[in-house]
Amino acid sequence: MTEKRKIIIDTDPGQDDAIAILLALASPELEILGLTAVAGNVPLELTSRNALKICELAGHTETMVYAGAARPLFRDLVTAEEVHGKTGLDGPDLPDPEMTLQTENAVDFIVRMLMSEPKGTVTLAVLGPLTNIALALIREPAIATRIREIVVMGGGFFEGGNVTPAAEFNIYVDPHAADIVLRCGAPIVLMPLDVTHKALSTAARTQAIRSLGNKVSLAVAQMLEFFERFDEEKYGTDGGPLHDPCVIAYLLKPELFQGRLCNVSVETTSELTMGMTVIDWWGATTCPKNAMVMRDIDADGLFELLTERLGRL
Amino acid sequence: MTEKRKIIIDTDPGQDDAIAILLALASPELEILGLTAVAGNVPLELTSRNALKICELAGHTETMVYAGAARPLFRDLVTAEEVHGKTGLDGPDLPDPEMTLQTENAVDFIVRMLMSEPKGTVTLAVLGPLTNIALALIREPAIATRIREIVVMGGGFFEGGNVTPAAEFNIYVDPHAADIVLRCGAPIVLMPLDVTHKALSTAARTQAIRSLGNKVSLAVAQMLEFFERFDEEKYGTDGGPLHDPCVIAYLLKPELFQGRLCNVSVETTSELTMGMTVIDWWGATTCPKNAMVMRDIDADGLFELLTERLGRL
Amino acid sequence: MTEKRKIIIDTDPGQDDAIAILLALASPELEILGLTAVAGNVPLELTSRNALKICELAGHTETMVYAGAARPLFRDLVTAEEVHGKTGLDGPDLPDPEMTLQTENAVDFIVRMLMSEPKGTVTLAVLGPLTNIALALIREPAIATRIREIVVMGGGFFEGGNVTPAAEFNIYVDPHAADIVLRCGAPIVLMPLDVTHKALSTAARTQAIRSLGNKVSLAVAQMLEFFERFDEEKYGTDGGPLHDPCVIAYLLKPELFQGRLCNVSVETTSELTMGMTVIDWWGATTCPKNAMVMRDIDADGLFELLTERLGRL
Amino acid sequence: MTEKRKIIIDTDPGQDDAIAILLALASPELEILGLTAVAGNVPLELTSRNALKICELAGHTETMVYAGAARPLFRDLVTAEEVHGKTGLDGPDLPDPEMTLQTENAVDFIVRMLMSEPKGTVTLAVLGPLTNIALALIREPAIATRIREIVVMGGGFFEGGNVTPAAEFNIYVDPHAADIVLRCGAPIVLMPLDVTHKALSTAARTQAIRSLGNKVSLAVAQMLEFFERFDEEKYGTDGGPLHDPCVIAYLLKPELFQGRLCNVSVETTSELTMGMTVIDWWGATTCPKNAMVMRDIDADGLFELLTERLGRL
Repeated sequence: MTEKRKIIIDTDPGQDDAIAILLALASPELEILGLTAVAGNVPLELTSRNALKICELAGHTETMVYAGAARPLFRDLVTAEEVHGKTGLDGPDLPDPEMTLQTENAVDFIVRMLMSEPKGTVTLAVLGPLTNIALALIREPAIATRIREIVVMGGGFFEGGNVTPAAEFNIYVDPHAADIVLRCGAPIVLMPLDVTHKALSTAARTQAIRSLGNKVSLAVAQMLEFFERFDEEKYGTDGGPLHDPCVIAYLLKPELFQGRLCNVSVETTSELTMGMTVIDWWGATTCPKNAMVMRDIDADGLFELLTERLGRL
Repeated sequence: MTEKRKIIIDTDPGQDDAIAILLALASPELEILGLTAVAGNVPLELTSRNALKICELAGHTETMVYAGAARPLFRDLVTAEEVHGKTGLDGPDLPDPEMTLQTENAVDFIVRMLMSEPKGTVTLAVLGPLTNIALALIREPAIATRIREIVVMGGGFFEGGNVTPAAEFNIYVDPHAADIVLRCGAPIVLMPLDVTHKALSTAARTQAIRSLGNKVSLAVAQMLEFFERFDEEKYGTDGGPLHDPCVIAYLLKPELFQGRLCNVSVETTSELTMGMTVIDWWGATTCPKNAMVMRDIDADGLFELLTERLGRL
Repeated sequence: MTEKRKIIIDTDPGQDDAIAILLALASPELEILGLTAVAGNVPLELTSRNALKICELAGHTETMVYAGAARPLFRDLVTAEEVHGKTGLDGPDLPDPEMTLQTENAVDFIVRMLMSEPKGTVTLAVLGPLTNIALALIREPAIATRIREIVVMGGGFFEGGNVTPAAEFNIYVDPHAADIVLRCGAPIVLMPLDVTHKALSTAARTQAIRSLGNKVSLAVAQMLEFFERFDEEKYGTDGGPLHDPCVIAYLLKPELFQGRLCNVSVETTSELTMGMTVIDWWGATTCPKNAMVMRDIDADGLFELLTERLGRL
Repeated sequence: MTEKRKIIIDTDPGQDDAIAILLALASPELEILGLTAVAGNVPLELTSRNALKICELAGHTETMVYAGAARPLFRDLVTAEEVHGKTGLDGPDLPDPEMTLQTENAVDFIVRMLMSEPKGTVTLAVLGPLTNIALALIREPAIATRIREIVVMGGGFFEGGNVTPAAEFNIYVDPHAADIVLRCGAPIVLMPLDVTHKALSTAARTQAIRSLGNKVSLAVAQMLEFFERFDEEKYGTDGGPLHDPCVIAYLLKPELFQGRLCNVSVETTSELTMGMTVIDWWGATTCPKNAMVMRDIDADGLFELLTERLGRL
């Protein structure tokens, strides 16, 4: 039997974060060393609490959950309650968590895992602003060469942005952190809006999940229905983009995605384009190719995988 | 009979500029008040000379041609000989022009026409960097309310840029001028790469032009074949994008294009994104809707129009 | 007898501009080719009108006055009525001018003079934002090597700014123009606040001028008394800084000033420091030494010169 | 007897840091909770080692020394070996330290002290780049309201910069950290170059220290002689500026300094002015008055204090 892939999920749940976490918890290929919460979709107090709720929903109360940064490195925190609701996890009515947070700071946990686990074995699955990861790199620069891979939901290029015309939310919230991570030298996979906007929670796909009939799938269907309202209204689509689960799906079935290794640079100085991921898809510059940027996805394959795994919980 | 539409063509030929000028010269719906040359694809000395050559090629030696700005407002001039060849008009072997430039500066000509022709009757068809137009607005701010329409080939958004990952050439060369024009208050139509990359000079389309059999169509076919090499190699397409003729085609058959009125802002501070046209397609901001941004084109319709008109020369 | 020095005075009067112009008109060493007005302290309509008024006050109705740019190159116009009063020339009650403006644009006049007068004979004395000069350089780049010297009142470094903590008014109003001029390659002398804040119109100095008893000196005393109020209140000094006359005084008696050839760069991207003249006084960089930056002045010598000359009018 | 003032000294020794630390160790008014080292004048490995050496030199081997950030928040580390020598502490020949660093990270120590000591009792004396302090504020925003005072050697305004024409070294190395600290809301005292360039280690002052005749004073004299060479050559002064001891002197005898409460903003976007402290000394803006900015010093008083205290070690 293949060894499980060790991952730390850094997250700011968020309905799509929640579904990504559930997908990971349901997948035997992955060993989740811990969940690390960060401020993003909603403030840290809520994202860390939501992380606990999701572990309990999945019945995985053994999961270690750590709280990290309450604010971005340099800019003021921007949140997205208009998308995710007041709690960040509006939709299902989940009970208050009985699990508690670990006392160790998420940043310290990330550093400790990367320094203690064998080199090249720990993957960071990043579903929110990159603050915790950047702080870990500042705290202990030596982790950069010990990371197996950083898979990030963030950015957008040919699709434009979602929080401003040019910037995607996760990168916009902490562009300086994103820049630090993208220049750290570790192998990076980027799941931008160019991919995630092709992974829509259509009515049929949501219904397929709901039909599983277990408690988790009902909650997921409720999350999807709440979450997709914002994008449906903005873009006139059937369903909303299932951003974060793409990161976990990539760890399970990379063949669902297609992309290109190229340079990604983050705008950190101009307000107009702040947080934009400038992707040199056509090789117009000589900047180093620092990220595998995904652009296409087998969306049916993604939802089949998700549905099948949710059925296991 | 409808009155002819009065236009000034501001241009930095360039093969695609040349074809746009030929399309205009061949079209009875348009009254060309003058051609104004600007530095861009190649230096001013060449673009103004190329403008003369094209008028002679078309047999329209009565056309008034004016030279304008030899450099952008603020940044150093960037040219694109790698695309257009050393002369800017590589491909056909056109004779030295016998026509001469008018002595009046292009900027003064633009101001004079707009102040003397009836208000709202003069359209600016802009095929190059916006330096001349911005200088006219600085020289005489009152022209802004007298312009009928400014139709600009420039920018790009969902398509990315062509000179840098984020910026299109015309805007990149003089982003400050582009910003001045976009904020001047006159009605603006923007033909970005998002449109022009859908108007490809495929082998079949080029052959249809060549088959016209007249002198002009042969020269156009030669221009297309030279010009398309750069983009074919970069993007792997059949044919290159016919950028500038879209501007003239819009004046003749606007129904070929589809777009949306929205805000367009130009990046003028960050080197990473310098000259990017940030297009608020989804209305994410409250910035004023200052430009009709085209995104779709009936490319067959464009080439039919072009071919039919070139046949008249 | 020495030949007169040919100068064009580019100006946005302004009381201190007015006194500088009077100093020039009273000085036989200078041949004033023309006054060119620019928007700055007040809008162009007022600065050009004020230029006429001053020529009439001095009895020099033969002076050619040209109106130039009504707005900066790129930024919105900022004016300083709080310093100069509503008219820009508050203080004395000067009659409406009977002289009229030349019809030629100031920018064209500057270009024409520099291209027609012998190379290296025309000096530009610049008392306002550098818009006209930059536009002349854009219109005809060849003038750069034909200018004898550009003497500019503008900038500040060890003294800080006057319109923002970091920027002096003339440079702040059009930093892009200032940058173009400072990089044009012509010999440049800069009179920053570091000099002009040492040239204070103390009560005694103003009284000495008033005591001349002629019409001009009374008007000058009234200008000084109006003008100095702003700086006296802000800085608690006796008298205000006599900025612009330093430029003309330098042309007459350069030995009144002491400075150093060094690099001056203009901030054009950050709002916080916009328009700051960063002066590399200590040679910390390898940037080219593009300006003779004055830092010290014999202020008594300046006022003696001014008083003596005003007595001649 | 008055209670001792609790301080944490954050430092990147550096000769002037060393002398500041010695001044603090020799002063019974202060209780040094710990020294926290940061990368700056030289890399962290050296600054933390130098901190140990200085404690041993002073015979204060009980002092707790912590290592913090090895790099700035966002920019690449810039060091200043040309000023401080290869070790950062060139001049005296100090033995390898026998003391060892605490295992706790400096940032965690700062947070722990501020959260555990009574509110408003702990002062941060900051002698280097502000990275550690900013990281503490990011780690635990609640410390902002618990700090008694942050006294920082950094910045410059009327004096210009020392590492670039506009920026002082400590702020330039980590402008983002400086900006975070300056906006944190805690009481801040700034000792810019405007003060420290008036505190010169003249030959007479250095001789007075050397004459104390103890081991420490000899080492200090050697440090001064090494350190002052750079500034003496650059500025032609007798002696170099005693930057960091001003911070400790302020804690002991604030009456030696004179300044003004005003707004200080840090430039973080433009390379030309990067790291400049823009000080609104004249109240030209409505920005909040966030720092007591010192501008004058009783330099004789400073050296008397320093000499007297070094005599106690």
